[in-house]
Amino acid sequence: MKYGFGIDLGGTTVKIAYFEETGKMLDKWEIPTVTENGGSQILPDIARSIRQYMDGKHIADSGILGLGIGVPGPVNAKGVVNKCVNLGWGVFNISETLQSLTGFPVKAGNDANVAALGEFWKGGGQGCDNMVFVTLGTGVGGGIVVEGNLLHGAHGSGAEIGHLVLNRDETVPCNCGKYGCVEQYCSATGIVRMAKRHLESTETPSVLRDLKELTCKDIFDAGKAGDKAALEVLEQFYAYMGEFLGNVCSTVNPEVVVIGGGVSKAGDMLISGITPYFKKYVFHAASAAKFTLASLGNDAGAYGAFKLALDAFGK
Amino acid sequence: MKYGFGIDLGGTTVKIAYFEETGKMLDKWEIPTVTENGGSQILPDIARSIRQYMDGKHIADSGILGLGIGVPGPVNAKGVVNKCVNLGWGVFNISETLQSLTGFPVKAGNDANVAALGEFWKGGGQGCDNMVFVTLGTGVGGGIVVEGNLLHGAHGSGAEIGHLVLNRDETVPCNCGKYGCVEQYCSATGIVRMAKRHLESTETPSVLRDLKELTCKDIFDAGKAGDKAALEVLEQFYAYMGEFLGNVCSTVNPEVVVIGGGVSKAGDMLISGITPYFKKYVFHAASAAKFTLASLGNDAGAYGAFKLALDAFGK
Repeated sequence: MKYGFGIDLGGTTVKIAYFEETGKMLDKWEIPTVTENGGSQILPDIARSIRQYMDGKHIADSGILGLGIGVPGPVNAKGVVNKCVNLGWGVFNISETLQSLTGFPVKAGNDANVAALGEFWKGGGQGCDNMVFVTLGTGVGGGIVVEGNLLHGAHGSGAEIGHLVLNRDETVPCNCGKYGCVEQYCSATGIVRMAKRHLESTETPSVLRDLKELTCKDIFDAGKAGDKAALEVLEQFYAYMGEFLGNVCSTVNPEVVVIGGGVSKAGDMLISGITPYFKKYVFHAASAAKFTLASLGNDAGAYGAFKLALDAFGK
Repeated sequence: MKYGFGIDLGGTTVKIAYFEETGKMLDKWEIPTVTENGGSQILPDIARSIRQYMDGKHIADSGILGLGIGVPGPVNAKGVVNKCVNLGWGVFNISETLQSLTGFPVKAGNDANVAALGEFWKGGGQGCDNMVFVTLGTGVGGGIVVEGNLLHGAHGSGAEIGHLVLNRDETVPCNCGKYGCVEQYCSATGIVRMAKRHLESTETPSVLRDLKELTCKDIFDAGKAGDKAALEVLEQFYAYMGEFLGNVCSTVNPEVVVIGGGVSKAGDMLISGITPYFKKYVFHAASAAKFTLASLGNDAGAYGAFKLALDAFGK
């Protein structure tokens, strides 16, 4: 039996997990992400933490097949990071650097892509060959699996489906600098923004008008309770989701679409809201895609990162 | 040296080509596609034509590595055809059927996908790993290559990018039954349709108003000559192309976008028209994609079909 590590590198913490090659997670812990000095300490900190763990558990180097790591930015198939703004990183080969720090072979991927691989392997996409993963959180991220392999893209920015253009007439810019991206409507932030616009532009009475700080959860809760304005906002959100996921599925034709991120806590309501719009907008031959919810939560990235290493270095 | 056949099965003719494993096309010919009786004669006709050719040239069965075939409809990775309306075909395994008729192993793919593979291998996409191919003809077809492999999709309908929704407010249905598909604006037919709409809704003087039958070529020719109405129509077309290809590239992140089909005869004018809109709409990390024109013309399908067989059965 061989073992390995899956690392989910985020802007505030690094999640590290120790796996059996079967995919069983044996242990997990977190260390802080130190972004000072251009993030130069991050990889040495990870290497040290893994070494300490191995020493503490008396794990021999020979038992380790390798390391996988998910990174919050574009990474190409060779491991070249192309700027991780949140970490202060520029352009360098993370696989080579982390390998020389640890002595173990390293495979790297973009964090959303890697989380997709985790859900594909052990979560909502288990058993399929082709999958689209979308995370609806502060932003909208994505990951695509084609015949069992992650779509990295030529420049490590495959599956940036949060930045498809959904509304070419948008006047407010997206964080990415473009106008009318999916993320501006379908992220938690985007849903709140749509709700505020809707409340301002209509007279519909709504419990949402009484709230000091409007959250995405408030809108779903009000919708469940039958609040008309909330339902109108959610309907617009479902329509946008159905259209953009329809376009992604006409392109990729997956068996399964897995929805994760904070907004996915809305659960089956979300899937039943999106489905009729998806059927309306998707190409008929790609319409059989099944919608499921992500099931690994915060561990998806660690699972996917280890799977990257397993695919690259396992037997 | 081994050899094989690449077959491009169309609604009116079947193009068959004989290849060296190096990719050199040694011979090519056509036979009619007989669609009577639910297209039941098509595969026997192909098998007979190949056998006659081999007999005439004294080619031994042992020298043949296999056959590849591109089909005008969805085909999954296992070779199951899911209805080819133009051929009268239902659901069956074309690889198994053609293998039992010829005695050679067969690999099948969708025609647009297979043409994409041909351009990837020997045409406009040579030397890249990730490619998006779009054909602008009577309709709009597509093909996607991810790390050297064709994206077939779970149901054989990957890369149906002619049916992404570009205009959710469209009131006229697309041939596929949906509303506002790319094909309704960016095919040769779609460009003519946009021009007619534009001429009807404006007073702009135009040479196009004097034509009895308006063709796509007329519009490009008038545009080249500086006709204002034609230029306005082309500008709208370029904007749509840039937006939809921007979305496809934000999803797939290819090195190269290859444009083929009749409309691509407009040449560099097309690429320079699309590029600024593409840059506007694509996600920045995927914006380095290079645009090229297809270079294999009608042979792309045969090249790609043989490449399918070579990848599956070659050494």
